[in-house]
Amino acid sequence: MEKLLKLKNILEEVRMINISIGQLSWDQSTEQPKLARGEYSNVLAYLYGKSHSLIINDEVRDIINSLKDDDSLNNIDRAILNELKDDFEKKEKIPKEQYEEYARLQSLSTLAWEEAKEKDDFEIFKPFLEKIVDYDKKFIELIGINGHPYNTLLRDYEKGLNVDDLDKFFHTLKEELMPLVLKASSVGNPVFDFEHKAYDIDKQRKFSRFLSEYLGLDFQKAVLKESAHPFTDAFSNKDTRITSHYHLNKFLSSIFSTAHETGHALYEQGIDDEIAHTILGSGSSMAMHESQSRLYENIIVRNKNFWVPIYDKLQAIYYDNLKDVSLDDFYRCINKSQPSLIRIEADELTYPFHIIIRYEIEKLLFEDKVKVSDLPEIWNEKVYEYLGIKPTGFSDGILQDIHYSKGNFGYFPSYALGSAYASQFAYGMSKTLNLDECLLQGNLLKINEYLRRNMHKYGKLKTSKELLLEISGEEFNPKYYTEYLKDKFSSIYK
Amino acid sequence: MEKLLKLKNILEEVRMINISIGQLSWDQSTEQPKLARGEYSNVLAYLYGKSHSLIINDEVRDIINSLKDDDSLNNIDRAILNELKDDFEKKEKIPKEQYEEYARLQSLSTLAWEEAKEKDDFEIFKPFLEKIVDYDKKFIELIGINGHPYNTLLRDYEKGLNVDDLDKFFHTLKEELMPLVLKASSVGNPVFDFEHKAYDIDKQRKFSRFLSEYLGLDFQKAVLKESAHPFTDAFSNKDTRITSHYHLNKFLSSIFSTAHETGHALYEQGIDDEIAHTILGSGSSMAMHESQSRLYENIIVRNKNFWVPIYDKLQAIYYDNLKDVSLDDFYRCINKSQPSLIRIEADELTYPFHIIIRYEIEKLLFEDKVKVSDLPEIWNEKVYEYLGIKPTGFSDGILQDIHYSKGNFGYFPSYALGSAYASQFAYGMSKTLNLDECLLQGNLLKINEYLRRNMHKYGKLKTSKELLLEISGEEFNPKYYTEYLKDKFSSIYK
Repeated sequence: MEKLLKLKNILEEVRMINISIGQLSWDQSTEQPKLARGEYSNVLAYLYGKSHSLIINDEVRDIINSLKDDDSLNNIDRAILNELKDDFEKKEKIPKEQYEEYARLQSLSTLAWEEAKEKDDFEIFKPFLEKIVDYDKKFIELIGINGHPYNTLLRDYEKGLNVDDLDKFFHTLKEELMPLVLKASSVGNPVFDFEHKAYDIDKQRKFSRFLSEYLGLDFQKAVLKESAHPFTDAFSNKDTRITSHYHLNKFLSSIFSTAHETGHALYEQGIDDEIAHTILGSGSSMAMHESQSRLYENIIVRNKNFWVPIYDKLQAIYYDNLKDVSLDDFYRCINKSQPSLIRIEADELTYPFHIIIRYEIEKLLFEDKVKVSDLPEIWNEKVYEYLGIKPTGFSDGILQDIHYSKGNFGYFPSYALGSAYASQFAYGMSKTLNLDECLLQGNLLKINEYLRRNMHKYGKLKTSKELLLEISGEEFNPKYYTEYLKDKFSSIYK
Repeated sequence: MEKLLKLKNILEEVRMINISIGQLSWDQSTEQPKLARGEYSNVLAYLYGKSHSLIINDEVRDIINSLKDDDSLNNIDRAILNELKDDFEKKEKIPKEQYEEYARLQSLSTLAWEEAKEKDDFEIFKPFLEKIVDYDKKFIELIGINGHPYNTLLRDYEKGLNVDDLDKFFHTLKEELMPLVLKASSVGNPVFDFEHKAYDIDKQRKFSRFLSEYLGLDFQKAVLKESAHPFTDAFSNKDTRITSHYHLNKFLSSIFSTAHETGHALYEQGIDDEIAHTILGSGSSMAMHESQSRLYENIIVRNKNFWVPIYDKLQAIYYDNLKDVSLDDFYRCINKSQPSLIRIEADELTYPFHIIIRYEIEKLLFEDKVKVSDLPEIWNEKVYEYLGIKPTGFSDGILQDIHYSKGNFGYFPSYALGSAYASQFAYGMSKTLNLDECLLQGNLLKINEYLRRNMHKYGKLKTSKELLLEISGEEFNPKYYTEYLKDKFSSIYK
C-alpha cells in the first residue's frame, strides 16, 4: 500500500503540471495577445518534459511491476494502474528530449497554421507540417503497434481500433449513404433568405450562453468563451470550458458549435467526484467524447422537437430576421443536406464523407505514398471525388482544421465513429425514455441524468466497448447510425 | 562563465514556473468558474514550492558566492546577481514547507475575503487573516531586518525604506495637506447630476479600451479584462494584462481604474527586450510602479487638457447623459475633493489620508498593540479621525481592499510614495517637454517615449533612488507632491 500511495503522489504531481499546461494552452487559444504568441512554446516544452520525467523513471516502472499482479487493489486503483501502464509503455519509448521538442513544435506549428490559414498560404505551414509528420512517423516506429502504421496513431483516440475495422466501417457508410447523398442533391433545397442575413454578434453570444445552459451545462462549473476553432478543455469536473465562434452572416454556425462543445462539456461535468482528480477522470476515449458532442449537436439540437419549446425565444432575439420564419422552415434549413467544403459546417448526411476524405489521405501519408507537399492537391481531388465540389483555396481545403498542426493524425475517424456511437446510444436510451417527449417538454435534465448515470460518471473506468454493450445490448453496430440518417433524410428528400 | 550559464538556466526554469503561477492567478481573478475556486490552491502551493527549491539550494548558494566578487561580469549580469542574492537571502530563511503553506493560505484566504466582502461579514475572513498575520510575523522574525518589524515588510515594496522615513513623509503630508482638505470641505462642491446616472456597461467597456489605447497601450501586447478589484499582471513586455471594473451608476470609476492600470502596463511594456526575460524585467519597485499608475491616473487623466481632444468623443458615446455637460463641469467633477470611504475611488487630495490610516493600523498590528479582531473597530476610528466619516459596514471599511487577504502588509505606503514620486517625475519631465501642450495635442506618444527612455526601459537595472536623481536632479523630495496638490486644489477651492 505504501507503493500505491507513492504512485498516487506522483500522479497528483503530474496532474498539477498538466493543469499548468492546460491553463497555458487555454490561454493561448482564447486570450493571449498577438505579439506574445510564441513566447510560451518553451514553457510548454519545459512542462511537458517535467510531466514526462515524473512518469518515465525506474521508480514508477518498479511500482507498476510490483502492483500489476496485486489482487488486493480495488477496481478504481486497478483501472488507474492499467491506464498508467498503457501510458508508461507508450511514453517510455519516446526519449524525453524528443517529447519536449515535439511539444515546442506543436505550439509553434499551431501559430504557423493560424497565419497560413489567415493568409490562405500553404507554404507558411508546410515546413512545420513536414516536421510534425516526421516526428509522428518516428513515434510510430518507436511505439510500433502491429500491422498498419496508422494503427499506432489510432491508439490515442480509440484503443484497440485498427485500420481494418475502419475500412469496413467506412465502406458501409459509403454504400449505405451515398445513394441518399445523390438523392438529396437531385431533389435540391429551397433557398432560405434568413440563413445568411446579418445577426448581431452580441446577440449570438447571448443565445449561445442560453443554449448551453438550456442543454444543461452548469455555469457554476463552466466557462464559455471564444476562439477561432471551437473546442473544449476540462481541468476537472468542476472546471470545464468551451469555446464557440461568431460570424455575422452565419448565425447557425455558432448554434451548432456551441451545442457540439456543450456535449463534450456535459460529459466532463458528469464524471464522478471519486475519480475526477485521477487519470480516469475524463472521457473514456476520443470517439466516446465525440459521441456525446455529436449526440447533442445533431440528434438533439437538429431535432425539430428540441426547438418547439424555445423557438419563440430565438425568434424574439432575432426578431427582424426570424419573425416570419416558421419552425418548419427553420427545421428544414438546419437539416439541409448539400455538399460543402468546411467539415464543421457540414450537414449530418455529408459529414462522414469529410471524415473519409481525411482518413484516406492520412493513410496514404503514413504509408509513404504521398508527401506533405502533395497534400493540397490530393485533398482537392478527394473532395471532388466524394463531394463533387472543389475548394477555392487552402483555407477551405487542407488548412481548414487545426488538428494537423498539433500532429493529431488519427483523430478524425473519432468524429464518424462518435456519430455512429451516438445513434447506438440513442437507441439504447430509447428503451428507458422517450427522447422526443423529453425535448417537447424541454426536459433536458432527464436526458442528461440518463447519460450521466449510464456513461458520463464512469470516465475511463469503462471502455467504449463496455458502455456500448451495457447501454444498447450489443457490440458496436453502424446500422443504428445509417438507419437514423436514412430515416431522417429520406423523409426530408422524398 | 560556466557557472553564470548554469545560473541563467536555473533562473529560466524559475521564470517558466512563475509564468505558470501567473497564469493560474490571472485565471483565478478573471475567469475561473465559481465552484472551481479552491481547486487550485494546492497547485499554486506546489508551484511555489518548486520555484523555492530551484533557488534555495547549495548549488545556487555556491554560484552566488563564487560570482559575487567576479569583476568580469557585465552590468546586467551583475545586477541579476545582486537581485538574486537579495532574493536568496530572504527566501533561504523561510523553510520550503512554510513557503508552500503560505501560498496555499493566500489562495484560500483571497476566496474567503471575496465571500466576506460580498456578505459584508468580517467573521468569514477573520480566521484566515489571523493565520496570514501569524505567518507574516513569523517571516519577519525569520528574515529580521533591523529596527521596527514593519521595516521587514517594507522591503518587498521599496528596498531600503524604513518606518522613520515614512513617519516623516506622512507627517509632512498631514501638515501640508490637512488645511487644504478642511478648506475644500468648507467650500463644498456643486452637485453634478450626470455623475451617477446609468451608463451602459458595454459602452463603458468600449470606452475603457479606447482610453487605454489612447494613453498608448499597445494591444498587440496587452489584454484588458474585468475583475472585482482592478489589477495589472505582466508575463513579459510582450504580454501585459490589466483589468478594470464596471458599475452602472459609477462610470468615472472605470475611467480612473483603467487609467491607473494602464500606467502600470505602460511601464511593463516599456522594459527593454534585453532584460525582459530576466529577473530585472519588471518595475524597479512597487513604489516606482505606483508612480507610473498614479501619474497616468491623476497627473494625466485628471488634467483638463487631457480631455480637450477627446471630450467630444466621450460626450458622443454617452450622448443622453453628457450632451449638456461642459468640459469645465466634467473637469470640476472629476477633481471634486471630499472625504469618502473607498480608497480606490478617492480624490487626489484626500487619497493620502486613506494610506495614512492603513499605515498606522498596520504598524499597530505588527507592534502587537492590536489584534486582528480589533481591526474593524480601529479602522472605523481612524477613518473618522482623518476623514470625519464612518464606514457603513465592513465592505466599505476593513474589507474593501484585496491586499490583506494576500498578506501584503507594507504595500499601501507605495501608493502614497508613488504619488509623490509621480509629481517629482512630472517636474523632471517638464525640463524636456511641456506636458500640457502634449495633452492638448493628444500627443501621448511624446510623454510615453520620454518615460520609456528615461525610466521604463531600465526595469530593475536602476533603483528608484537613481531614477529620481537622474530625472529630477535631486533625491526624493515630497515638496513636488504637496506643491502640485496645493496648486491644483487651491485654484479649485478658492
